[in-house]
This record gives sequence, C-alpha cells and structure tokens, in this order.
Amino acid sequence: MPPIKKKVHINADLGEGYGNFKCGPDDELIPLIDHANVACGFHAGDPLIMMETVRICKQRDIAVGAHPGLPDIQGFGRREMKLSPEELTAMVRYQVGALKAFLDVEGVPLHHVKPHGVLYGMMYRDKEICRAVYEGVPRGCRVFGLAGTFHEEVAMEMGLPFTAELYGDVKYSQDGKLVIDRKKKPWTPEETEKHISSQVEDSSVTAVTGENVTLPIDDHDVSLCCHSDSPGAVEIVTAARKIIDEFNKKMGYT
Amino acid sequence: MPPIKKKVHINADLGEGYGNFKCGPDDELIPLIDHANVACGFHAGDPLIMMETVRICKQRDIAVGAHPGLPDIQGFGRREMKLSPEELTAMVRYQVGALKAFLDVEGVPLHHVKPHGVLYGMMYRDKEICRAVYEGVPRGCRVFGLAGTFHEEVAMEMGLPFTAELYGDVKYSQDGKLVIDRKKKPWTPEETEKHISSQVEDSSVTAVTGENVTLPIDDHDVSLCCHSDSPGAVEIVTAARKIIDEFNKKMGYT
Amino acid sequence: MPPIKKKVHINADLGEGYGNFKCGPDDELIPLIDHANVACGFHAGDPLIMMETVRICKQRDIAVGAHPGLPDIQGFGRREMKLSPEELTAMVRYQVGALKAFLDVEGVPLHHVKPHGVLYGMMYRDKEICRAVYEGVPRGCRVFGLAGTFHEEVAMEMGLPFTAELYGDVKYSQDGKLVIDRKKKPWTPEETEKHISSQVEDSSVTAVTGENVTLPIDDHDVSLCCHSDSPGAVEIVTAARKIIDEFNKKMGYT
Amino acid sequence: MPPIKKKVHINADLGEGYGNFKCGPDDELIPLIDHANVACGFHAGDPLIMMETVRICKQRDIAVGAHPGLPDIQGFGRREMKLSPEELTAMVRYQVGALKAFLDVEGVPLHHVKPHGVLYGMMYRDKEICRAVYEGVPRGCRVFGLAGTFHEEVAMEMGLPFTAELYGDVKYSQDGKLVIDRKKKPWTPEETEKHISSQVEDSSVTAVTGENVTLPIDDHDVSLCCHSDSPGAVEIVTAARKIIDEFNKKMGYT
Repeated sequence: MPPIKKKVHINADLGEGYGNFKCGPDDELIPLIDHANVACGFHAGDPLIMMETVRICKQRDIAVGAHPGLPDIQGFGRREMKLSPEELTAMVRYQVGALKAFLDVEGVPLHHVKPHGVLYGMMYRDKEICRAVYEGVPRGCRVFGLAGTFHEEVAMEMGLPFTAELYGDVKYSQDGKLVIDRKKKPWTPEETEKHISSQVEDSSVTAVTGENVTLPIDDHDVSLCCHSDSPGAVEIVTAARKIIDEFNKKMGYT
Repeated sequence: MPPIKKKVHINADLGEGYGNFKCGPDDELIPLIDHANVACGFHAGDPLIMMETVRICKQRDIAVGAHPGLPDIQGFGRREMKLSPEELTAMVRYQVGALKAFLDVEGVPLHHVKPHGVLYGMMYRDKEICRAVYEGVPRGCRVFGLAGTFHEEVAMEMGLPFTAELYGDVKYSQDGKLVIDRKKKPWTPEETEKHISSQVEDSSVTAVTGENVTLPIDDHDVSLCCHSDSPGAVEIVTAARKIIDEFNKKMGYT
Repeated sequence: MPPIKKKVHINADLGEGYGNFKCGPDDELIPLIDHANVACGFHAGDPLIMMETVRICKQRDIAVGAHPGLPDIQGFGRREMKLSPEELTAMVRYQVGALKAFLDVEGVPLHHVKPHGVLYGMMYRDKEICRAVYEGVPRGCRVFGLAGTFHEEVAMEMGLPFTAELYGDVKYSQDGKLVIDRKKKPWTPEETEKHISSQVEDSSVTAVTGENVTLPIDDHDVSLCCHSDSPGAVEIVTAARKIIDEFNKKMGYT
Repeated sequence: MPPIKKKVHINADLGEGYGNFKCGPDDELIPLIDHANVACGFHAGDPLIMMETVRICKQRDIAVGAHPGLPDIQGFGRREMKLSPEELTAMVRYQVGALKAFLDVEGVPLHHVKPHGVLYGMMYRDKEICRAVYEGVPRGCRVFGLAGTFHEEVAMEMGLPFTAELYGDVKYSQDGKLVIDRKKKPWTPEETEKHISSQVEDSSVTAVTGENVTLPIDDHDVSLCCHSDSPGAVEIVTAARKIIDEFNKKMGYT
C-alpha cells in the first residue's frame, strides 16, 4: 500500500484530569503535539482544568479541539451507555459549547471535535449514533475519526470536514476498528515504532489477530492519535514525533 | 417612594428539571413571562432539557438568559460551597457557554446572565465572589441582580449592563437582601399582590422583620422574578402578570 | 391456568426523589402497600431521603427492601450501561450496605433486594450480569424478580429466597419479559384491573403483541409491583389493593 | 511537655482514587501503616475501589476505618459546603454503611470512623456539625480526631471511644488546629522528622506562625496521620514509620 499522501500531524487528549485527580502528563506532551483534544467535563475535565488547558494550548500554539464524552466520570467515558439520539446531540452540543466559551475568551478558534472513548466506537458501529453526535457539532466544524467507517461516511453526508486518524498506541481489529481496553497496557518502543511506521509508510497495520489491515485513508487530512493516559505516554509520543517528523520530511510534506 | 421608572418585565427560572425529574410548570409559565433564566446543568437542567427549553422559548418569543449555579444537583444550588475565584469564573463561563451552544443553533441571542440560588446571595455578600462570577459572563452581556448591592456595583465597574430585579415570591430582609429557604413555603394571593404592588408602586417592600425597605432601583431596567418551583407558582405568576401589566399601562410604559 | 397459589402482596418503589426533586406520591402510597423498595442513591434517592423513607416505613410497618440501580441519576437508572461483573457486584453491595445503615439504626430488618430499572432487565437477559448483581446481595437475603427468568434460576443456584413479581402497571412481551419505557404512559382503570386480575386469577397476562402469556409463578411467594412514578400511581395502587385484597380473601390466603 | 503516653500508631487514607483516576500509592503505603481510612465514594473512592481496598487491608492485616467526606468528588471533599445537621448525619451514616457492607463480606470489623478533609475541620470549628456527623457513626464505634477540640469533647459526650491524631504532613495553627491547603506542598525529610518527633517526644509542635503549641493528648489512644496524596507520601510515611517504631520501642510501648 502507498504511504500517507498528506502531512501527518499528532493529536493527544489533554485536560483529562478531574478536580485534584491528575491524568496524563499534559505539560510534557504539549511540546510534542499539533492538535489537542480537550476533555469537556463529562468523562473527565472540569471547568477550571478546561480554562487552564486552553490557556496553555494557546501559549504553545496548539490547535484545540473539543473532546466530548459520555456523562460518566467514574467510567472515564469508557462504559457504553444507551442514550437516545436527542440526548447524544444535546450532550455533544453542550460540551462543545462549554469548551467554546473558554476558546472565545482567549480568541482561539475551535479546530475540531473528536468524540471520546467508547462514544467514538459506538459511532463507527452505529450510523444513527454517529449522526446524532455530529448533529451536536457546530455546522461546518472539522471532525476527527476513523476513515472507512461511519465516522467518514456521515461526516461527508453532513458536510463536516474530516480528518482521518491513525493510532499510535491502540491496536486494530481485523476490520480496521480499534481494540479498546478500559485499563491500558504498556507498549515497548519497538512495538510503538513498528505500529506507527507501518501506518504512515504503507497505510496499513497488523491487527491483533495477525492479519495485515489496509487503512482507507485516501487523501484525507491525517492526525495520529496518542493517548495521554497510556502507560509511558511521553515515551510513546516522543517516539511518534520523531517517526512522524522524519516521515513528513522524507515525503516533502510541509 | 416613587414608582418604578421604567417598564417592568417578569422573569422566571425555566428548565430546572433533571432527567426524569420535573421541577416547575414551565409550559404554563412561559405564556406569562418576558425573560427566562435557563438552568445550565449544574444545579438543575441537563443538555436535553436545555435544548428543549431554548426551543420553546424561541417559539414563544421569550428572551433567554443563562442561569448558572453551584455544582450541586442534590442541593439544587442552594447549599453554600466555598470555591476559589478561578473556579467560580470557570464554572460560570462553562455553563453560559453550554447554554450559548443551544441558543446559537436556534439563532437566539443570549439576553442575560442571572446566577442561581445561593450563588446569587454569595455574590451580594462578597465582592470578590461577585467579581469572579461576572468574570465568567461574556464581555458586555447583561446581568440581572439586586440593585444597591455588589451585584450592581460590580456590574457598573465591569461595564456589564444591569437589570434590577424585584422579587414576586421571595421575602426581603431589613437591608434589602433576600431571605431564601431551601424548601419554599406557599403564599396567599393577597400576600403576593401586596408584596408586588408595593415594589412597583412605591419602590419599597415590607421586610420579614416588619420594616419598610426602600429598593434603590433608580432608573435601571427592571424585571420581577417569580420562582417556578414555588408552591402555587402558576397562580403567583398569573397574579404578577396582571399587576405588572396594569402598572405598565397606567404608567404609559411600553 | 390456575390462580396464584399464595397470598399476593404489593410492592412499590419509594424514596425515588433526589434532593429537592420529588418523584412518586410516597405518602399516599405507603398505606396501600406491603413491601417498599427504597432507592439507594445511585438512580434516585439520597441519604436524607433514605433516612426519612426508612423511618416512615417503620412507622407504617412496611417491609423494607433495597432498590439498587445503575449509577445514573440523570437517566433514572433506565439507560443501559456496560459495567464489569466486579463493578456490578461492588455497586450493589455498596447500595445495599448504605440502606442497611439506616435500617440498623431503626432496628428494621432488610426484607429483600430488588434491582431497579434497566438493571432488572439486564439481569434477566444476561445470566452473568444476574450472578454479578446477586453476588452483591447479602448472603441469604430475599430477592424479588421475574419467575421463569435468570432472576429465578440464579437465585436458586445461589441459595437466595425468591419472590416472584407480578406487574400492575408494566406491560409484558410475548416471552414473559417486561416492556419498559423511559417515560411512562397512563393506564385506564379498566386496563389496570384486567391486567392485574388475569395475573392473579389465571397466572397469565396479555402481551403487548396480543398473545396470552403464562406466568410461571409456581409456588413462589408473590408480590405485585406498582410503580410510584407512573402517571396516576395512586389510582393504580388503590385499584390494585382492592383487587389483591379481594383475591387473597376469596382464596383464603392470610 | 511529656512524651505521648501510649503506643503510637500510623494511619493513612487509602482508596482515594476514583474510577480510572489514581490517587495515593496505596500498595506502597499499606506495609507501612496500622490503620487505613478508606474513602467511601463521596469525596473519592468508588464501590470497586472500596471492595479492592478492603480486601488488600484484610490480607495485610491493617485495621480498617471509614473515611466519609462531603459529597464533592471534584473538590475532593476540600470545599466547604453548608449542609443541614440531618444531611450530615444521613450522609455519614450512608457512607459508613456502604463501607461496612464490604467489611462484612470479608469478616473484617469496622475499626473506626475518621471524617475526611474540610468536614474534619468543620467539625472541630462547630459543635453542632460535630454532633451531626457523630450521629451518623454507628453507636459505640471509635472515632479519630483532634484532641482538645469538639472532636474529643463531643465523642466523650456521645460515648464514642476516641483516638487522638497527630499529623505527620500537615502543619498546625497556633490554636492546635490544622492548616489545610487544597493542593499539598512537598516537605523535606528534615521538616518531616522534626515535625513528627516533637509531637511524640514532647506532645507539642511548632505552629505555622512560629509558636510552640502543646497538644492535649492526655492518655488517649494515638494515631499519626500521614496523607497518601501528599507529594512524597511514601518517603514521608517511611520516615514516620521509623520514628514511630523507634519511639514506641524506646518507651517500651507494645
């Protein structure tokens, strides 16, 4: 398979603490990423953390997106919940609006919306859920998702600009979907490098079941997601940054 | 004391249910009021209720304001909590932004911000708290508050347009502040009428301790607040509407 | 089919308010019921409501059971959530223990445990979930459930005394399961009477799809559930009480 | 002042994570302490964490107490809230009962109750609050608190066995109360040692304002509290263990 056709960026979830509870090493990750997905208070994050995270992203000139999740701090948005389409739309609109208030004050545009955790998976498994979530995204706002799934299909239908995501620290299933664990396991540097390199160099990846899976990235914009709450997140993102920078340079993407 | 110098409006809190829990008789109140204070999910309200409440207000052409509260559904925003100024600012900004997302989709402007419950009282008792809350209000947005208190003073300092509130179903203390109970008690129609009439006709009211209290409304815009969760709320607001309409007519306020 | 073989009792959910939010007409229902299922703070109820509800049940000599639910006040425990078996066990144990603290102070025994809302349905659809929930029930404590489902089967396996429930205000599907709506619709008195009478007189009921469904009650203890948050709950329970009292009398059940 | 008259123990708060959020280094602290204060889900902790924490404490033979807090996960129980006496009683009874359910299953007795965070401080500043909280403690159960304050006075009045606490990582004010910060600052080993040694050797401590403060421990049982969420908690508790063991040995306390 061919390499990715456009400049690859890196995104990470930021602001996923809650009150006194810390989550990822945001301070160390920020210099390494291009796009931040900022938690909006439903699966993690709270108003104060959001305010501070937006300020830091502005200082470091990181593009900021909203990272809405299911209303479940205890489950970190990783426990599937059955919500009605209206609830999904309202819940996403609420969270994105809340983040936008902090962006507006700082004069920072809303760069994208990327749904969090199990909601992201529910969307690529169920078109109605995907549509209900996107209905809560501001008209014309960019969404991040998985190419070749309802994420992309519904974004196209609803006229939302689409960025295809690669995953630096999540494994894929045979059908090109993600294999999410509620508690993350550590990766070795070699695993990380092989996992990322094959995605950008060959638009493909080895599934958990061993098959080679082609990623239908096509000519979409691309952003590689690395999770801030993975064990060894800083090492993973540092490694990813190096691989991505070299890839972009080699391909002449600027 | 002279009568109120400008047209008097009526405001009520709407959307103060939570999930399946109902609160006020919103449907019956809407035809009777001019300004709605819509709960933003912290003391009451949830995204779905907010979405529906904004739609109904738009249909009935009611001006919509945000009604941010303390983060305490169980206490209905009526249990005082000590928050830092940064937390207060962030919490208000978050809630107003969330409501604004629903307004934006409907093309309805944000008319005002009115803090809810004990937060309203904390603000007129503590200037730093008042400033921190207003810091979370969008620049230049109108605020509703109690004339002659920090509500008014800080609004003036921060350049926020100010609407002075009268209270249809809350008693006053000798110093012109409000006497709030966590659980409301019923009013007789006569009590309501006397309470409201003296406020609009004489800019004064009888305090719980018996004194006549002058309300320093001056030439501010004025809105009479009636609570939707009071026992007999529809009767109170119906009575208030009649008194206010007659007063406005008599005074030639249009 | 034969009539129910043992004295039929009536149960209702009580204490399903939350903070200032009211739910059912508890005061009016209490004189009409035999068994109370008291909400434990996860789908509804809060410590203060639990304390007061237990006291009232004691005064009126109503047997008190725990009514644990999913951790989702906003969804009233009616939005399905995927929890791990350990989470389910811990969540039920926590809630039952919390209620037991109020019972212990009043010297009232824990009569039974009845899971709430969608959790109840998840249990009869999935044996592992049923087992995980019962694992959280104190050893040897009675459980209320639907005869002929995993509710009964797992109770037998785990040595938990079982009370078969009939439903006064919920429709049945063709396979003898319940048809639950997140927002309840009203019943006419005739519907209620026919629905209850056929269950006690003939151990059968008409499904929503029209078929006659046999209820495999066998010689279990029996309690008819009436929901306190149904529209017209007091009328339904009053009617149910009359039907049940007449049935018990006619059959000579004391 | 004389040294402490009885064997000194060490207590620490355990199970103060929430869902995926970690808090203290529980695994490393457990071998170092005698008494665990287990969070009960209101300021931190959740049913699953409680279940696991109780099991680990049982394995390591640590005495387990309940650590009830204000209902505020986001504020970690460190934001003062005004609750009614009935709410306080009910809230404590609920939390202790929930923990007791996990203890009962493991056959572990409830060793004590120690209120968390700002609630602890509210109790020694306000006798009515102290009484309301203790009203929620099971009859005859031991409480941990600050000697010479309402903690001790009310425990005596209500017949609750009292353990006087020393503080390994919290500073004292001139009146023998604690100086709590919402976010903790690190201690040097020297500071820790001096702080602890003076408390056990001389029943006194240097206040933040410089004065020497006498701790009225008298002949109460004694437990030194070290916080698990302090920066460098393991180092502090390791140091404390060494000081306490040496002190107990020197004094011949067994």
